[in-house]
Amino acid sequence: MTARYPCSAVIREVGLRDGLQSIQTILPTEQKKAWIRAAYAAGQREIEVGSFVPARLLPQLADTAELVAFARELPGLFASVLVPNLRGAEGAIASGADLMIVPLSASHAHSVANLRKTPEEVVAEVARIRAARDAAGSKTLIEGGVGTAFGCTLQGRVEPDEVLRLMQALLDAGADRVSLADTVGYADPGLVADLFTRAMAIAGDRFWCGHFHDTRGLGLANVFAALQAGVTRFDACLAGIGGCPHAPGASGNVASEDLAYMLGSMGVDTGIDITRLLALREQVSGWLASETLHGTLWRAGLPKTYAAASGHATA
Amino acid sequence: MTARYPCSAVIREVGLRDGLQSIQTILPTEQKKAWIRAAYAAGQREIEVGSFVPARLLPQLADTAELVAFARELPGLFASVLVPNLRGAEGAIASGADLMIVPLSASHAHSVANLRKTPEEVVAEVARIRAARDAAGSKTLIEGGVGTAFGCTLQGRVEPDEVLRLMQALLDAGADRVSLADTVGYADPGLVADLFTRAMAIAGDRFWCGHFHDTRGLGLANVFAALQAGVTRFDACLAGIGGCPHAPGASGNVASEDLAYMLGSMGVDTGIDITRLLALREQVSGWLASETLHGTLWRAGLPKTYAAASGHATA
Repeated sequence: MTARYPCSAVIREVGLRDGLQSIQTILPTEQKKAWIRAAYAAGQREIEVGSFVPARLLPQLADTAELVAFARELPGLFASVLVPNLRGAEGAIASGADLMIVPLSASHAHSVANLRKTPEEVVAEVARIRAARDAAGSKTLIEGGVGTAFGCTLQGRVEPDEVLRLMQALLDAGADRVSLADTVGYADPGLVADLFTRAMAIAGDRFWCGHFHDTRGLGLANVFAALQAGVTRFDACLAGIGGCPHAPGASGNVASEDLAYMLGSMGVDTGIDITRLLALREQVSGWLASETLHGTLWRAGLPKTYAAASGHATA
Repeated sequence: MTARYPCSAVIREVGLRDGLQSIQTILPTEQKKAWIRAAYAAGQREIEVGSFVPARLLPQLADTAELVAFARELPGLFASVLVPNLRGAEGAIASGADLMIVPLSASHAHSVANLRKTPEEVVAEVARIRAARDAAGSKTLIEGGVGTAFGCTLQGRVEPDEVLRLMQALLDAGADRVSLADTVGYADPGLVADLFTRAMAIAGDRFWCGHFHDTRGLGLANVFAALQAGVTRFDACLAGIGGCPHAPGASGNVASEDLAYMLGSMGVDTGIDITRLLALREQVSGWLASETLHGTLWRAGLPKTYAAASGHATA
């Protein structure tokens, strides 16, 4: 068997949201803008810039509207935000974000503990968000993101059938896109192949993104399995910023630069200039000097064979 | 597509050889024996216990013959050693090792720099080793291990055709088994799928083992790709002991416990009790307190879903 997978893929940078919300340091707005500008210059075209949540809950992300406005000035940049509810969605719509992600946790226990809603209540909220979006004549896409898709630390197992049922419910409620997330790093490549293949069959072009954590070192192996299932968009955090609150020191999202390297080496076009992304990583790691960062490529550097293999030789 | 892969696989522990030869600490023979005993108790049945090289070159491994003798006392344990040449092979044969690995570097530049032989000279040495083994009436298997199979830090690119030509030459010279190694961490899952599929087609049952380094974080993704190609044996080091001399701080071999977790989670039977392996890791990490260790599972722990998923629930 020769490996078969798509010839291009998008790395959606979620470090500014998923990464920054999980750490202590509050990055000034100007540094966030510099990050967005440099990521754009390195070829990244989809960035989750923040979250429309009350500033008292996540003061790190209080400048989200300003960042959406900034991102919209960069031609071709697709700016996403996270919204936990209708109120957040109204902020996202007003900001002109290209896409808003509504998280749903397939684990009932995790959903109640973290979102203070049942999964069904989140589905109902998505229907309200869709109505509000349409009433506003807004073009902001709605992505329903099904988290804890491979289990969770509270209830343990989450049935794949339940994950797919909720994904279908999100589509039925009006989500334009759906995604699956391994929120706590429980997935393995076999589980990923099975679940994502089924999800792709259900959602087709409306299947949007795979979100993998590297808590147990399987982040990139899981991406590879999802890629083989036809998934062409993956969330990642520069320097793997964030981490797992349940395992101090363990990494959170896969590192953008490592993912860009894997895909580039495989000949999967991401449009990313890795040398520039590594330079940005160095800059951001200076801003976050007190935080534990992750990733491997920054230390080892690109292989001598990289440019030849991928055609991504960069200055 | 649903992921297809073998239902069982062997993790060959190479920490006592590949790991210990790469670090400063010299582990006393009694600790090595305790390691072998505990690895055996955790279910590991193939262990590379050392290398037959002059003690002045690798004093860390001077006790290899004693360790082979010790390993042979454990029922069903398959003991491997590395041998760089005929003299080493004579030591391995005399020790009664089950298998001796002769490393060959497919990169001409790397071969001359590290083995002080051309690849062709290594092939010729394998023929002499085979003759000596047969003349001695020994049952010690000969494994030809083709390293730098995905490129090297000296010459860069290594052509897959050249790798496979040398693998065939090793078989023709009398190697009973052949393996491929990504010595410097240049492989990616696409390259692995292509090369290992071709190698399996050539060597069939005589294809023995995949050896991956995690230098750029792709070790487990590469294992998954090789597993899909039908490979059922992988080298790994407990705690990822070792590291890459070309990238200080970067990891070397994939960590045995992380690999055992990935395979176990996928339902691939390795016979390993991960809880015991993690306990051994803790013990060994105490012996190697001054060394940089690797791996992720030891920090995050097994998922709540693990036992149910794999049937490997352990006391």
